[in-house]
Amino acid sequence: MGLISPDEYKASLVDGRVVYYKGEKVENVVTHPDLGVCVNEMAIDYEMAEDPKYGDLAAMEDPETGETISRYYYKPQNAEDLLKAHELIVKATELGDGYIPLAHDIGADALNAINITANMIGNQDYIDRIENYRKELQEKDLATCAGVTCVKGDRMLRPSDPEQAHPDFYVRVVKKNNKGIVVRGAKMHITGAAYCNDIFVVPCRAMTDADADYAVSFAIPANTKGIKQVCRPFISQRSPLEFPNTRPVRVHTDSLIIFDDVLVPWERVFLCGEWKHAATMVYNFALMHRRTGCAYRIPLSEQFVGAGVAIAEYNGIAGAPHVREKLTDLVIYLETLKSLSKTACYDFVMRGGLAVPNPIATNMAKYHFAHNYHDVIKIIQDLAGGLVVTAPTYKDYQHPELNEVIDKYLVANKNVSAENRLRMVDLIRRITRAEMETICLHGEGSPMAERMTIYMEAGKVMKDCQRLAEELAQIKR
Amino acid sequence: MGLISPDEYKASLVDGRVVYYKGEKVENVVTHPDLGVCVNEMAIDYEMAEDPKYGDLAAMEDPETGETISRYYYKPQNAEDLLKAHELIVKATELGDGYIPLAHDIGADALNAINITANMIGNQDYIDRIENYRKELQEKDLATCAGVTCVKGDRMLRPSDPEQAHPDFYVRVVKKNNKGIVVRGAKMHITGAAYCNDIFVVPCRAMTDADADYAVSFAIPANTKGIKQVCRPFISQRSPLEFPNTRPVRVHTDSLIIFDDVLVPWERVFLCGEWKHAATMVYNFALMHRRTGCAYRIPLSEQFVGAGVAIAEYNGIAGAPHVREKLTDLVIYLETLKSLSKTACYDFVMRGGLAVPNPIATNMAKYHFAHNYHDVIKIIQDLAGGLVVTAPTYKDYQHPELNEVIDKYLVANKNVSAENRLRMVDLIRRITRAEMETICLHGEGSPMAERMTIYMEAGKVMKDCQRLAEELAQIKR
Amino acid sequence: MGLISPDEYKASLVDGRVVYYKGEKVENVVTHPDLGVCVNEMAIDYEMAEDPKYGDLAAMEDPETGETISRYYYKPQNAEDLLKAHELIVKATELGDGYIPLAHDIGADALNAINITANMIGNQDYIDRIENYRKELQEKDLATCAGVTCVKGDRMLRPSDPEQAHPDFYVRVVKKNNKGIVVRGAKMHITGAAYCNDIFVVPCRAMTDADADYAVSFAIPANTKGIKQVCRPFISQRSPLEFPNTRPVRVHTDSLIIFDDVLVPWERVFLCGEWKHAATMVYNFALMHRRTGCAYRIPLSEQFVGAGVAIAEYNGIAGAPHVREKLTDLVIYLETLKSLSKTACYDFVMRGGLAVPNPIATNMAKYHFAHNYHDVIKIIQDLAGGLVVTAPTYKDYQHPELNEVIDKYLVANKNVSAENRLRMVDLIRRITRAEMETICLHGEGSPMAERMTIYMEAGKVMKDCQRLAEELAQIKR
Amino acid sequence: MGLISPDEYKASLVDGRVVYYKGEKVENVVTHPDLGVCVNEMAIDYEMAEDPKYGDLAAMEDPETGETISRYYYKPQNAEDLLKAHELIVKATELGDGYIPLAHDIGADALNAINITANMIGNQDYIDRIENYRKELQEKDLATCAGVTCVKGDRMLRPSDPEQAHPDFYVRVVKKNNKGIVVRGAKMHITGAAYCNDIFVVPCRAMTDADADYAVSFAIPANTKGIKQVCRPFISQRSPLEFPNTRPVRVHTDSLIIFDDVLVPWERVFLCGEWKHAATMVYNFALMHRRTGCAYRIPLSEQFVGAGVAIAEYNGIAGAPHVREKLTDLVIYLETLKSLSKTACYDFVMRGGLAVPNPIATNMAKYHFAHNYHDVIKIIQDLAGGLVVTAPTYKDYQHPELNEVIDKYLVANKNVSAENRLRMVDLIRRITRAEMETICLHGEGSPMAERMTIYMEAGKVMKDCQRLAEELAQIKR
Repeated sequence: MGLISPDEYKASLVDGRVVYYKGEKVENVVTHPDLGVCVNEMAIDYEMAEDPKYGDLAAMEDPETGETISRYYYKPQNAEDLLKAHELIVKATELGDGYIPLAHDIGADALNAINITANMIGNQDYIDRIENYRKELQEKDLATCAGVTCVKGDRMLRPSDPEQAHPDFYVRVVKKNNKGIVVRGAKMHITGAAYCNDIFVVPCRAMTDADADYAVSFAIPANTKGIKQVCRPFISQRSPLEFPNTRPVRVHTDSLIIFDDVLVPWERVFLCGEWKHAATMVYNFALMHRRTGCAYRIPLSEQFVGAGVAIAEYNGIAGAPHVREKLTDLVIYLETLKSLSKTACYDFVMRGGLAVPNPIATNMAKYHFAHNYHDVIKIIQDLAGGLVVTAPTYKDYQHPELNEVIDKYLVANKNVSAENRLRMVDLIRRITRAEMETICLHGEGSPMAERMTIYMEAGKVMKDCQRLAEELAQIKR
Repeated sequence: MGLISPDEYKASLVDGRVVYYKGEKVENVVTHPDLGVCVNEMAIDYEMAEDPKYGDLAAMEDPETGETISRYYYKPQNAEDLLKAHELIVKATELGDGYIPLAHDIGADALNAINITANMIGNQDYIDRIENYRKELQEKDLATCAGVTCVKGDRMLRPSDPEQAHPDFYVRVVKKNNKGIVVRGAKMHITGAAYCNDIFVVPCRAMTDADADYAVSFAIPANTKGIKQVCRPFISQRSPLEFPNTRPVRVHTDSLIIFDDVLVPWERVFLCGEWKHAATMVYNFALMHRRTGCAYRIPLSEQFVGAGVAIAEYNGIAGAPHVREKLTDLVIYLETLKSLSKTACYDFVMRGGLAVPNPIATNMAKYHFAHNYHDVIKIIQDLAGGLVVTAPTYKDYQHPELNEVIDKYLVANKNVSAENRLRMVDLIRRITRAEMETICLHGEGSPMAERMTIYMEAGKVMKDCQRLAEELAQIKR
Repeated sequence: MGLISPDEYKASLVDGRVVYYKGEKVENVVTHPDLGVCVNEMAIDYEMAEDPKYGDLAAMEDPETGETISRYYYKPQNAEDLLKAHELIVKATELGDGYIPLAHDIGADALNAINITANMIGNQDYIDRIENYRKELQEKDLATCAGVTCVKGDRMLRPSDPEQAHPDFYVRVVKKNNKGIVVRGAKMHITGAAYCNDIFVVPCRAMTDADADYAVSFAIPANTKGIKQVCRPFISQRSPLEFPNTRPVRVHTDSLIIFDDVLVPWERVFLCGEWKHAATMVYNFALMHRRTGCAYRIPLSEQFVGAGVAIAEYNGIAGAPHVREKLTDLVIYLETLKSLSKTACYDFVMRGGLAVPNPIATNMAKYHFAHNYHDVIKIIQDLAGGLVVTAPTYKDYQHPELNEVIDKYLVANKNVSAENRLRMVDLIRRITRAEMETICLHGEGSPMAERMTIYMEAGKVMKDCQRLAEELAQIKR
Repeated sequence: MGLISPDEYKASLVDGRVVYYKGEKVENVVTHPDLGVCVNEMAIDYEMAEDPKYGDLAAMEDPETGETISRYYYKPQNAEDLLKAHELIVKATELGDGYIPLAHDIGADALNAINITANMIGNQDYIDRIENYRKELQEKDLATCAGVTCVKGDRMLRPSDPEQAHPDFYVRVVKKNNKGIVVRGAKMHITGAAYCNDIFVVPCRAMTDADADYAVSFAIPANTKGIKQVCRPFISQRSPLEFPNTRPVRVHTDSLIIFDDVLVPWERVFLCGEWKHAATMVYNFALMHRRTGCAYRIPLSEQFVGAGVAIAEYNGIAGAPHVREKLTDLVIYLETLKSLSKTACYDFVMRGGLAVPNPIATNMAKYHFAHNYHDVIKIIQDLAGGLVVTAPTYKDYQHPELNEVIDKYLVANKNVSAENRLRMVDLIRRITRAEMETICLHGEGSPMAERMTIYMEAGKVMKDCQRLAEELAQIKR
C-alpha cells in the first residue's frame, strides 16, 4: 500500500464508531455538518503528501524498505531528522491556518514514546509488537491519536487509592484472557479522537506497585466495541455577522472517551503491569508531544505578530513609541519560541535508540509559549482597541441606511478602508478568544508540568553550576 | 416628582428612537428579545431606590430642597460623599451580577465634569444651564449616559487637520442659530446609549484654536431627530448547552452613535468653542469615570477570586503549594483594587467646588485593574484546566446513555458532584471570555491613558522627591 | 521621670555590655568610631521629642497619668492612633535620611504583641508584668529592640526535633528557679541591639507540645551577664573618593546575640511553656513590625523617585518616552506603598484590646515593597547609566590636570554642572547597593512570609467570594 | 612573529602611557597594586594560547598564510566559525572566574565592524588599510580595545548642534594634514583601555551631513601623545574580613579617555567624513559586541545558578516548593541565554563578506540577559537570606571567644559546616553587588538599545506576518 488519499482517509471513518455531539449520537462523522469540518482539517495531512510542493516534506522513502512512508512514522536518528519533522509540523499547521492537521503527529509521539520504553524495558515481545505496529501504520498510513489524560478523580490520590470515589478514574486492566486484556476507564481532552482510525493509550502519571493494573498501554481502533466518545461543541461556520471569507473554517474538537470493558488483543498491548515504566512512557510522550506543541504554535504566533502589526497600522498608531514597544514584545515572543524549538533539535539526546528533542529546551519552549500567551493576547487587544467589542457587524454594514456612514466614520488610517479594518477586527476576535487561551495554557501539559520537568531534567546543569560556585568559594566538602 | 419606578423608566424608552441591531431597525428596545435584557439590567438602579434594603444608599434627601433624589445626581463635597457613592456603585454592581446598571453613573460623571468645568471657566450661562439641568435630572430621575469617544479618524492628527480624510471624525458644530447649535459626527463605544433617556456629549481630547468647532459639549435626548445608533450584538440568553440557571442574564451593549446634523437647544449647550477647556472637561470626566470603573470592577474581581477558590476546591487541588500561590495572587489583585479605590476617596481633592477622587490613586486603581487583568484570567484558566474547553454539555449530561458515566467519571473532589463542577466550569467560561478582556483593558481609557495621567498628576510628587534627593546629595542649583 | 535627652540615652549605653566588632571587643559603643555613628542615628528619636517641631508627634500626654510619654509606647485604640504612629515613623525616618532611628519602634512592636498575647491567654500574671513593664518603659524612656529570629539550624525541623544537630538553635529555657529562668540560644539579624537598653525576646515560629521549652518570651537589659553580641561591619564614613558631604552618615548595624545561660527574672518573663501561644505572639509581632517596615520605607522610596527624576534630568533624557514610562513606574511604586500602608490603618482590627493594622493590607504593603524593590533599583540604574560604575572620583576631580576636562566633558544637560551630576551619581551609588536589596527583601520577614500570611488572613474573603461565585453558578451544596 | 607570551604582553605596557587612578598618575600599570590585577586578568588570553588544553581553541592556523594566529583576529565565514568563537569566549571567561580577559575580543568586534563597513563603502584605501592592520594584529598579537561611547553632552542633540555646550562632546577631526588627522574629544566606559596596546575608535551614533567631522574611525596606540586616561577605582584584593581564598581576584576597570588633539596617521584612519556610514559601523560593532557580551555572561550566569543551588542546600531549604520554583527560574534564565546565543550563530547572516551573528537573536540574547538580571539577583538574595548582610566576619570567626559559638550556631543543613555556609555567603556578597547590576544592564548598550535594534531588524518578520494575517482575513490592499 503506502500513502493513502484524503478520500480513502475519509471513507475509513465510516466504521460504526460511537460518537455523541450536543447530546445526540452521530451517524457519520464525515458528513456531519460540524464534525465534517474537523475531518477536512485532518485530511490536510493526506493532501500535503499528494501535493508536489510538500510531498518531499510530508513523505519520505523508508531507508530499510524503500517504500514511501509518512515522515511522521519514521524513527528520528539525528538532529536533521528532528529539524525536518519540526519543519513539517510548522508547514502543515500553516496550511491549516494555525491548526495542526493531527492525522499522525500526536500518534507518532505516542508511537515513539512506546518504542523507546519498550527498548528501555528490553522486553522483546513489546519491542516486536511496536515494531510490527509501526510497520502497519507506515503501510496503511492510518490516522492515529493518543489518549493520555485520564479523568483522574482526586488528583492528590494515586489511581488505586481506596479513598478514590471509585477505582475507574484511571484506565485499568479489569480482566486478562488468552485473546487480550479488557480495559475500563475514561480519557479526556483527546483532540481528534472522533475522526482518527486508531487511538494509542498510554498512562498519564507515575505509578506504584499497587497501581500495577493501571500501568497499561495499547492501541485500539476507534470503532472498537465498548468505546464511546463525547465531543465538545464548537463553531464550525463563520457567523453571517462577520465579513464573508471563503477560506474554510479550521477547527478541531476534543473527546471524552469512555472505555466500557473494551477488549484489546495482545498484539496491541505495549505495557501491562510494569508500573515502574509508566512514568518513563508518559515522560517520553510528554517530551515529544511538547516538541510537537511548540512547532505548531509557531504559525499561530506568527498570526499574532501579523494581526498586531496590521491593526496597529490600520488604527494609525504604528508610529507611537509605546506601540513600537508592544510590537517588539510580539517579535521577541515569536523569536524566542523559534529559537528554543530549534535548540531542542540541535541539542537532541538519544533515548532507547531514538533521537529525542532536548528535554530542557523543549519544556522551556512550551513553557515560554504558555506562560506568556496571555501577555500576547493583552497586547493584541490593547492595539486593536474597543472596536473588537463594539464594531458594527457585516449585517449592519450591508444595510443601506448604514453602509455609507460606516464607510465614512470607521476609517482610521486613511490608506486602509473601514471594511478592511473591520475584517482585521473580525480576525482578531476569532484568534484571541478565551477558549484558545485555555488550550494554549494546558495543551501538552500545564505550565507547572513543564516547570517540574525543567527542574528535574536540569539536575546535572545545577550540580555542575554548584560545583563551579563551590570552587570559586573554595569550599571543600 | 422625584424618583421614578422601573416601569416608568421602561415606558420612557418607547419614544421613537432610531436603533439598529444585527442590520435591522429596532421597533421597541424594551420588548426586543436582546435589548430588553439590557433594559432590565439598567432598571436595577430604579429597583434599588425602591428597595427598603438599599434605598438609603441609592437615594438621599437633597440638603437644599429636602426632596428625595438619586445619590448619583448629588454634588460630592467630601470624602464621605465619595465613599458613599463608591459603596453605591459596588452594591448596584453586585445586584447586577457584576454589571453596573448604568442608569445614572456615567451620566453623573459627565454632569460633574461639566459642572466643574463651568465653574472653572466662570461662565455664568454655563453654570446656570448645568445647574438647571442637574435639577431637572434630580426631579425627573432620568437615565443618562455619556458620549465621549469620537471615531477620531487618524489619531495622530488633530480634529481639524486638513490631512484627515474628512472633517467629521470628531463631533463638531456645523451651524449655530438662535434656537441652538447643529452638530455632526459620530461617537463610538457608548455603553447603554440605546436604552437611556439623555446623552451627555463631551469632547474626547485636548483641542487647539483651529479645533474650536470641535470643542463642544451638550446633553440631548436619545430620540432627537438625526440621532442614529448601531448596537453590537451580544448573547442575551443562556445556551441550552449550559446547565440551567434561573438568574436573569446580565449584559449591556454599546452603541455607535451617528449625529446627522442634530439640533441642540442652547439651554443644553455647555461648551461651544472654548477650545482651551476641552481638555479640562475630558480630563475631569476621565477622572470621575475611572473612579466609577474601579468601583464596579470590585464585584467582578470578587467573582474571579470566588471562581478561582471554588474550582481549585472542586478540582481537588486547593492544597497544592503552587495553587495556594495563585489564590494568594487573586486576593492581592482584589485587595489592591479595593485599597487604591478607597484611598482615592480618603485623599480627595476639591475641583471647581466639587470633591473629586484623588487623581493619582484613581488612575492607579484603574491601571492596576486593567494592567493585571490578563494575569487574573490566566490564573483562573490555569486552575480550571482543560474542562473549560472540553467538558460535555448539559445536553450530553441529560442523555440517558451518558448521564451516569458523566456523573461517575467527572468527579474530582469527591465532596463535589460532577454536576456542580460542570456548573462552575460553565460560569468560568462565561466570565473569562475575550470580550471582557478587551472591555477591562479599554473601558474608561486604555492603560496608557492612565499611565499618562499618573505621570502628569505626579508632577508635584516628583519635584518634592527630587528636592529630597538633591538635599541628600548636597546639590545646590 | 518621663522623656530623656539624647545625652542621657548615650550615657546609659556605657554599661559593660559585651559587643564584638571586626573580631575585637568594643570598650564603649558610644565613642567607637563605627558604632558611635549608629548611636547618633538612634539618638534622633530622643532629639525629635525635644524638638518643638516634632515634639507633638514624637511624644504625647498619657491620658491615664497625664505624664508625657513617647508615642511609641502608647497602646493604639483606633485608626487615628495608628495613623499618628505611621506619621511619626515616616517623619523620624526622614530625619534619619532614610534610616528609621529605632530607639522605640521595634521594641514597641514587641511590647504590643506581648500585650495582646497576654490578654488573649488571659493569664493575669503576664498581663500585670507587661503592664508594669510598659509603665517602666514610659517612665524611663528606654531604648528597646526585639530579638525575634533564632538561628534555627535546619529550618525544616522543629526546635526540639532530635534530628537537629544540637538542641540550642532556638532560644530555650534550660533551667527555672525561684529567681527566674535561665535561657540559652542565639538570635540573629537583630538591628540596633548593640546600642539599645533592653531587648525583647519573642519566639519566631509556631511550636508544638514537644517544643514547650522554646515557647519563651522575655525582656532583658543588653548588658546582662551571659549576653554576647557580634556586629556586622559597615561603612560609617564617606569615602574621600566621593564628593564631600557634610550630612552625617546614617546607618545601623545588626547583631548576632548569644544567650549563654542567661538568667531572666520572673517579672520580665512573658511566656514560658505555653507553646500554643508562641504562634500568636510571633504573628502579632510580625503584623505590627511589618507596618513599621512599610512606614519607614516610604521616605526611602521617595529617595528613589527623587534620584530617578533628578538623574533623568541631569542626564538630559527626561523627555524620552521610555524614560517617562520608567518615572511613572517609580511613582506607582511609591504611591501603592503609601495607599496600602494607610489602608492598613483605616481598616484596622481590634486584637486583645489593641487596635492593630489590617493584616491583609499590612502584609500586602510589605510584600509590594519587597517584591518590586529590584525593579525599582533596575529603573534607577537604567536611568543613571554607566557613570555609576565608571565615573571619575572626587580625587580625580581635584587633580589640576583633570579638573577642567571633567568639568568640560561630563556635562550632559547643560543646565546642570558636571559636579552636580557626579554628586547625584555618588548618591545613587550609595542608595542602590546590594546590601540594601537584601534588607528590603528580608527585613520584617521574607516575601514568602508575607504571602503566606495574606493567604491565611484572606480565608474569610476567599470564602465570601466563593459563595458569590456559587450563587452565580446556582450551585447548592 | 605570531603569538606572544603573557610576559611579552606585560612588558609591552610599559610605554609611557598616561593613566590616572584615584587622582594620581600611574607610573607603571603592570606593577601598580590595583591595575596590575587587571593586567593579570587580560594576560589570561595569552596564557590560554600557550596552554596545550586550550591552544586549539584560542589559536588557529591562518588558512592563507599558514601562520598561527589568535582566533579572535580571524574573519568568520560560517556558522562553525561563529560557534568556535563563541566557545572560546565562554571558556576564556570561565578561566577568568566570570571576567572575560578582553585582550582581543572587543578589539576584534571593532576590527570586523570596520572591515565590513569598508567593504560596504567600497573604498579601496580603507579596505587595504584595515586588511594591513588586521595582518599586523595577527602578527604582533596586540591587545586591543574599542573606544565607542562618546561623552555625548546633551543626548537629545546631534554632535554638531550649536545648542551643545561645546563642540567636543563627540570625538571629532579638528585638523587634517599630510601626516594624518588630529582628533579631539572624550570616550567613556572603555573597559581595559589602560592596559591594552591599541585602541580602536569608532563613532557611537548615526550622523548627518553637519556632523561629518564626527564621522571618524581609527586605531591608535594607547601611549600616543595627547591621550590621557582616568580609571575608576575598584577592589583589587580580598578583604581580611572575608574567609581566605587563594584564587586571584579577577576584575577589570574602565577608562575615561581624553583625546587632546591627538595625531592619527592616515594608515590607521578607517572613516573620515563619510557620515552616512557612521551608523553602519556602530551598528555592526554593536551587533558583534553584543554577541561577545552574551557569550561571556554564560559563565557568570552559571555562577548564579550554582550559588543559588548551593546556598539553598546549605540553608537547608532546597526541598521547599517555592525554592524549587526559584531554582527552576534560574535554570530557565541560563538556558534561554544559551539557546539564543547559539541560535545567533546557527542563523548567521553574511555582511560585507563576513559571517555575522543573527541580529535579532543576538539582540534578544543580550536583552534577555540584561532585562532579567535583577530578577536573578533577587532570587539569589532571597535564597541566601539575611546572613549576606548580618553574618559575622572571618575576623570574628577567628576570635577564640567566638569561634566555637559561630561553628555551633550558624549551621543550617547539618551536612554543611558553618564555615562553608559563610564562605558561600562571602561569594554571594561578591557576585551580587550593585556595580555588576549596572554593568549587566548597560554593558554593550542599554536594554532600550537592544529593543530598538530588534524592532528595526524585525521589519521583514513583521511584514511577513502581517501578510499572513491579511490573507487569513481576506484583505486585499
